[in-house]
Amino acid sequence: MKELQISQRGNNTPASPIRKLAVFADQAKKEGVKVFHLNIGQPDIFTPEEFFNAVKDHSEKVLAYGPSNGLPELRNNLLNYYHKCGYSNIKEEELMVTTAGSEAVLFSMMAVASPGEEIIVFEPFYPNYNGFAAMAGIKLVPVSTDPETGYRLPDREKIEAKITDKTRAILVCTPNNPTGTVLNRDEMDVIKEIALKHNLFVLSDEVYREFVFEGEHASILSFPELEQNAVMMDSISKRYSACGARIGCIISKNKSVMETVLKFGQARLCPPTLEQIGAASLIATGDKYFKDMLDEYKKRRDFIYEALTSIPGVEVKKPSGAFYMMVRFPVDSIEEFAKWLLTDFRVNNMTTMIAPGPGFYASSGRGMQEARIAYVLNTEDMRTAVDILEKGLEVYNRRKFGE
Amino acid sequence: MKELQISQRGNNTPASPIRKLAVFADQAKKEGVKVFHLNIGQPDIFTPEEFFNAVKDHSEKVLAYGPSNGLPELRNNLLNYYHKCGYSNIKEEELMVTTAGSEAVLFSMMAVASPGEEIIVFEPFYPNYNGFAAMAGIKLVPVSTDPETGYRLPDREKIEAKITDKTRAILVCTPNNPTGTVLNRDEMDVIKEIALKHNLFVLSDEVYREFVFEGEHASILSFPELEQNAVMMDSISKRYSACGARIGCIISKNKSVMETVLKFGQARLCPPTLEQIGAASLIATGDKYFKDMLDEYKKRRDFIYEALTSIPGVEVKKPSGAFYMMVRFPVDSIEEFAKWLLTDFRVNNMTTMIAPGPGFYASSGRGMQEARIAYVLNTEDMRTAVDILEKGLEVYNRRKFGE
Repeated sequence: MKELQISQRGNNTPASPIRKLAVFADQAKKEGVKVFHLNIGQPDIFTPEEFFNAVKDHSEKVLAYGPSNGLPELRNNLLNYYHKCGYSNIKEEELMVTTAGSEAVLFSMMAVASPGEEIIVFEPFYPNYNGFAAMAGIKLVPVSTDPETGYRLPDREKIEAKITDKTRAILVCTPNNPTGTVLNRDEMDVIKEIALKHNLFVLSDEVYREFVFEGEHASILSFPELEQNAVMMDSISKRYSACGARIGCIISKNKSVMETVLKFGQARLCPPTLEQIGAASLIATGDKYFKDMLDEYKKRRDFIYEALTSIPGVEVKKPSGAFYMMVRFPVDSIEEFAKWLLTDFRVNNMTTMIAPGPGFYASSGRGMQEARIAYVLNTEDMRTAVDILEKGLEVYNRRKFGE
Repeated sequence: MKELQISQRGNNTPASPIRKLAVFADQAKKEGVKVFHLNIGQPDIFTPEEFFNAVKDHSEKVLAYGPSNGLPELRNNLLNYYHKCGYSNIKEEELMVTTAGSEAVLFSMMAVASPGEEIIVFEPFYPNYNGFAAMAGIKLVPVSTDPETGYRLPDREKIEAKITDKTRAILVCTPNNPTGTVLNRDEMDVIKEIALKHNLFVLSDEVYREFVFEGEHASILSFPELEQNAVMMDSISKRYSACGARIGCIISKNKSVMETVLKFGQARLCPPTLEQIGAASLIATGDKYFKDMLDEYKKRRDFIYEALTSIPGVEVKKPSGAFYMMVRFPVDSIEEFAKWLLTDFRVNNMTTMIAPGPGFYASSGRGMQEARIAYVLNTEDMRTAVDILEKGLEVYNRRKFGE
């Protein structure tokens, strides 16, 4: 007789590497220590007031189900946003509202790949892709990118070498979490050619689409030849600093894909109603909001880049998008160092939390010296946080190698 | 080379049978026809004011991520609710907030079964289970229950006959959607004995736990022998008439199960923040809310039961819970009849929508004469809706069999 045990799927699902040191951070906080969170992408930028006002103005007496593909007013406003971005040929039925970018990724993966099938990803990558793939029984096949090249896409041959008869899609994320790299049109052209040659879907995670400091965002939606292959996944979480709203969307001109994600959407009934009402109001948020936000993040990026590069032994290339960077630290095990910062190291009763690199790689042994830094704090806090890192490195390495 | 096509998983996922006639209803509405929705479980009861007030009072400037297992205040209030229900030994770490009952079911299924494995369900059942199972690559194995017995559980042998070496769990729903049947302790004891004998999980969908008109709700949480086997799935959608909030939870004393669903939860980051804040306030809603609601639904059930049984040829047993009943109509194909009501039949420019039975069965050929009726309208509207059904049956059968 079999034992009462959880599924293999459950065993295959990794705990979030971004959140797994949380227990040590919580302990430090309980002891009264201030922890600077450079580990998570929770911006401090205010959510537009329009959002809260719309929610407050809502006066229906019953908080009812909405349509499975999203409230009409939100769908309409999102469409307007993408039309304004230049993708004027997106039609109403080519957009579905999802419960955050998370659900957009899960549904897109599930729509193109069955259990046992494969999706190619570029590592380092957003670790929650691992969770979604494990939940869906899909195998993520990593193609490595390197700190030395600023995590740019590798040669076409290196990508094609990973394609098997089980490969169903290539997943790209631009601007990239965790590297901050913005794919240029040449790189996207390579993805396009591979996708067309091998009949693969391209799942494009563009939740940081507004966060481009240099160059231009090359959306998958701007490649007409990929109309049937492209599935764009988006979220309002970062664009409007509304992470808690859990509102995202999927866009595809592939009719079967949209029919399929709608069936998944019908199973879960609808995204949250009040948060959709808030999100629908955001179309009224002026371009100034984006511009101010972009200016602020550019300032932060420049600041933390300068601060980090001045630390002896730390290596980092300046990324041009999102609000993350991967940083190489002069330590043997970044996981040990990150944990030690939380458990053992304090400067004026403060410490800094970073997200260890290995969790962003699927290939074992990679990312051992890297960490993801999210520059989502104001510059003053970041100054202190980086100072703590610098002092911590000194103490950690002195302590480790003896004196 | 393979074709660019969606996943087999996508093909396996059924469209919602409850929502699939929606296109005909929409068309009727466009023509100015009033449609009475007896097909969906969207209650008209007001959501408690506490919910909206809490959301309005929320004054944080950044709508931030919450913890993956839910906001502490909501977790705490839900725990209090279950303690008050008599399950006083549920601990904090044994409860996780989910994005609605939908996610509770999906995560629970995924935690206990891998792609290709099986879960036993009693048909007719909530059709979205099909969607979740298809998404997860799990096979639902139906055990039939019958209109003649009021959809009570069949003999133990009939259930055990469906157990294979791939069976991982039995899924029960009590009070039941779509039948309204409330499982008694004897029936739950049979489930218990089978689960213990074969080492199976019991996934218990109790979102209608407050809707019991006669008898008593036998929660899976009230069977201490099943501590390790039991996974309870719940939602505030029906209990507080807050379907759009998308707030539910999973409770289990099995540590591995809770660790696993938390990993799934980390992948999707968190449930919606504002709606959790609203939900956390509901603990202040007095018992009078439940009592009034229960009185109202009991009145509606009695009313629609009387009205339906007075129609020649219609058969229905009076259910004792939830707000649904399965009704047998004197027609060959309920799907054809339900569609015809929307496309061809009007009384004073009004018609009635019902949910055809076959979508609630996994065995083909079953439910051809049955429909699910949700008695979520006030009695006046239900009077009109049932009159339309009665007249419709007469015209439909006369027209069909000629005169």
